[in-house]
Amino acid sequence: MKVRIGKLIMDELSRYGVEKVFGVPGDYNLPFLDDVIAHENMEWVGNANELNASYAADGYARIKGLGALVTTYGVGELSAINGIGGAFAERVPVVQIVGAPPTISARNGDYRHHTLGEGNYNDFTNMYGPVSAYQVEITPENAVTEIPYAIRMAYEHKRPVHIHLPIDVSTQEVEFSEYKINQILPSIDTQVMVEKIETALKQAKSPVVIVGREINAFRLESEFETFVAHTNLPVAQLNFGKGAIDEHSPNYIGIYSGKTSEDAVRKLVDESDLILNIGAKLTDAATAQFSQGFDMAHVVFINENDVKVSDTHYRQVRLKDVLEGLATIDYHYDQPIDSFESTRQKVEVEDVEAPITQEIYQQLMNEFVKPHDIVVAEQGTSFFIGADIPLGKDNAFVAQPLWGSIGYTLPALLGTQLADTERRNILMIGDGSLQLTVQAFSTILKWNLKPIVFVINNDGYTIERKIHGERAVYNDIPMWQNAELPKMMTTENKALATYQAKTVKALREVLQRVEQAPDKMHVIEVFMDKDDAPKTLLGLKE
Amino acid sequence: MKVRIGKLIMDELSRYGVEKVFGVPGDYNLPFLDDVIAHENMEWVGNANELNASYAADGYARIKGLGALVTTYGVGELSAINGIGGAFAERVPVVQIVGAPPTISARNGDYRHHTLGEGNYNDFTNMYGPVSAYQVEITPENAVTEIPYAIRMAYEHKRPVHIHLPIDVSTQEVEFSEYKINQILPSIDTQVMVEKIETALKQAKSPVVIVGREINAFRLESEFETFVAHTNLPVAQLNFGKGAIDEHSPNYIGIYSGKTSEDAVRKLVDESDLILNIGAKLTDAATAQFSQGFDMAHVVFINENDVKVSDTHYRQVRLKDVLEGLATIDYHYDQPIDSFESTRQKVEVEDVEAPITQEIYQQLMNEFVKPHDIVVAEQGTSFFIGADIPLGKDNAFVAQPLWGSIGYTLPALLGTQLADTERRNILMIGDGSLQLTVQAFSTILKWNLKPIVFVINNDGYTIERKIHGERAVYNDIPMWQNAELPKMMTTENKALATYQAKTVKALREVLQRVEQAPDKMHVIEVFMDKDDAPKTLLGLKE
Repeated sequence: MKVRIGKLIMDELSRYGVEKVFGVPGDYNLPFLDDVIAHENMEWVGNANELNASYAADGYARIKGLGALVTTYGVGELSAINGIGGAFAERVPVVQIVGAPPTISARNGDYRHHTLGEGNYNDFTNMYGPVSAYQVEITPENAVTEIPYAIRMAYEHKRPVHIHLPIDVSTQEVEFSEYKINQILPSIDTQVMVEKIETALKQAKSPVVIVGREINAFRLESEFETFVAHTNLPVAQLNFGKGAIDEHSPNYIGIYSGKTSEDAVRKLVDESDLILNIGAKLTDAATAQFSQGFDMAHVVFINENDVKVSDTHYRQVRLKDVLEGLATIDYHYDQPIDSFESTRQKVEVEDVEAPITQEIYQQLMNEFVKPHDIVVAEQGTSFFIGADIPLGKDNAFVAQPLWGSIGYTLPALLGTQLADTERRNILMIGDGSLQLTVQAFSTILKWNLKPIVFVINNDGYTIERKIHGERAVYNDIPMWQNAELPKMMTTENKALATYQAKTVKALREVLQRVEQAPDKMHVIEVFMDKDDAPKTLLGLKE
Repeated sequence: MKVRIGKLIMDELSRYGVEKVFGVPGDYNLPFLDDVIAHENMEWVGNANELNASYAADGYARIKGLGALVTTYGVGELSAINGIGGAFAERVPVVQIVGAPPTISARNGDYRHHTLGEGNYNDFTNMYGPVSAYQVEITPENAVTEIPYAIRMAYEHKRPVHIHLPIDVSTQEVEFSEYKINQILPSIDTQVMVEKIETALKQAKSPVVIVGREINAFRLESEFETFVAHTNLPVAQLNFGKGAIDEHSPNYIGIYSGKTSEDAVRKLVDESDLILNIGAKLTDAATAQFSQGFDMAHVVFINENDVKVSDTHYRQVRLKDVLEGLATIDYHYDQPIDSFESTRQKVEVEDVEAPITQEIYQQLMNEFVKPHDIVVAEQGTSFFIGADIPLGKDNAFVAQPLWGSIGYTLPALLGTQLADTERRNILMIGDGSLQLTVQAFSTILKWNLKPIVFVINNDGYTIERKIHGERAVYNDIPMWQNAELPKMMTTENKALATYQAKTVKALREVLQRVEQAPDKMHVIEVFMDKDDAPKTLLGLKE
């Protein structure tokens, strides 16, 4: 069957369930966009800029399983590279397609616009080397094998891939019959390591599991749940991995974050003689500046591609295989577990005219979030609030605690909400972060989406004030009219309600109104003191 | 003398006249920012995001001679890379300082936030290789030599340099006495090539000069003017180089842009038997898709670092030296010159209720721009209007015709206006471009700047409609309330006036009001038909 190369890309993406393509048009990608908009299962989501588009594709992929991004060469390609870096770091599969100058221009070294003007056409693809699992230039000769392969690479590695698509190539027709790829990544026999872990568990007095991001990234929630149910082990999760376990589970003990963990969690983990560290990266942000108190010799590292038991390092291991193996071992933890659900304390919120504190905000958000909600939390004070909201297995938590690019979440919300317009999406963001990528409001409105956006107005970069320069001018921002601004990003009559809340009473009233109007998008500007911060953040300085 | 490394960087930048540092704070650069704000000759200009900051530093450098940008590691660093790519392509000296994780973390391969989480700390500096003239990691040992050297590299190459500054290094004190660098780039004797060019000129029947961007980039306007006055040669300029010559000069014949040139200019250049191509890059955008009609064998290429006369290629040549040599040759062009000034036709604008056309807009802008104004033109239809405004030697023209990153100009305007708050800055931009970097309004307002911003509202990406997909959805944008939006980006009472103009009469009235109120910032939304375009752009398709 003859097929246009542009259509072939869309067909392959469609096989993985992709239905939206994010990006910004540019003259080198316009003919390819014809194939995007012509495809029966695909819609084009134009974004105000490429960074926003890359964040949106990331958000979409986190919910849908795969995302797609189209930019133009050079300018658009580089504007998106921070977003792709985030997807690489946090293991999100995004297929990036760059509409590039004609093949003949590259051959001739033409001085074309969007190049550095020195005749080189490989620089930008090379720059993507460190932040993508695969890079390829499509030609009419390689299209039928490289396109399915590149997309499969993204899907299996859970990382971005970079497709360089010259403008003259995308419109060419090639002969294509299905090129089926069952599995690219190797899968070695895991029996030996599973047995070693089983032995270690049997010898341990106080084993515990730390779970992290790879469970969500590799969509192993159900395999992990089966393993926990089978072994009955207590489980702590990293904030860089929230969503790996149902927080109402009797095995779940809470978030482990080094010295800022709740005392009971910290004690159990730090004093454990066997920690199964599953898909969990012990980053500075996840461990309160590497303040973990446990002995590294007690840790078994079980990651995608990589298992380390005592001194033996196994590679090319699939995490899925190990979890399935561990779900069959002859072991059952039989000590009592003080679960998070049974021990957590609720703060009573008085219905008063008092200002809103971070502590009260936390409590109100804990109550506001419902099963099935997607919670998106920006990497400022909002992240610490979001990380502390107890979520069930039907919730999803979207944040960027490793890459930590501020401004990520508003465009990511566009992606998560487009991935499933039926679920309620709740974004928590601050006034400083909002300014980086505020244009995404416009796209969210254009698509008539109905997320709920909480914008904390606390007069600048509070998270940075807590780190350094509490009163320094560089932590100030120009204040915006955050509740008015989104309205200016449309000229149509959209179902958008905006609010300002300065007291607890006002916020509670707003929350009620929001609950009663699911047919609207809501933007709530929540005023707080600039020195107030969530207790986990404050704990970092102690 | 003992000096903190952070202060040393500020001292060195200050020696080149830098007075503003653009950027975004992040935890890895906060202690360094203390040195920025403490410096007596320096001010910190916080931006909403790093791409905007990089554009602003570029705009500032184009007027002031050198710019400075501070970002945090990874996320901020990569968000700025498109802006730095533009500075590289268009030869703008921007010193980029990246606040990075502590040296010990890099040594240990720590999993830190803003890294890819795999222990590598060189990736991002390497990614800057293709878009910067120099990259260096500062240590206490190399600071006293590398900092002056890196800044000098930017200054001489007229290109960005990349300084990786670990957070623990910036605060250390080092012994420093002035490390003076006279000149890094070599300068070879130009006599032989000047003589060859003199001989060629004497033999030529119809010589002509094409001049381009390097005259502005290397600040050789006065050397070029002396050369032209001495030889009396006719001069055409590229739109990628506008500002190289006083357009009121009797030697100036107009813009050469291949097939879209005015007939008289095209004929003179295409039929010339000797073209001195001075600092001019014959890009696709400058030549209407490589449509130049002249014989390449007739061209002498005279560039910074690079002169090509017939078959001889000289390297490591300073353009300045060649121009000075050419200003002493025994040659005088004595044919009559039909100068641009004497031949250009003015369109009479009727004061009517008619809609505003691009042609009328061009005429009104030609009249509106005054001596000393800085004209900033976005790479859409606005660029073609801006390129056709006749500018004198006291004007400046800021645009990005090679790199062509849409959204560049609003943040660039922040930079150009901060570089000289006394000069009137006029930006022409379109509704599509504005959306990429709209946050810059907020910073411009914060600094109480008074530029004049024309936003064309013509319902989407008109320049792309003219290229491909005239009615395709991907060339649509969500419409914004462009005249209201800037007001929402401040909560203070700023001297900001905004307007909407839908008819010629209305626009004329607005222009009068703007002229009468130089103490305000003005934003004028100019409505035009989405299919209308400047004639040079329309000529591209013919």
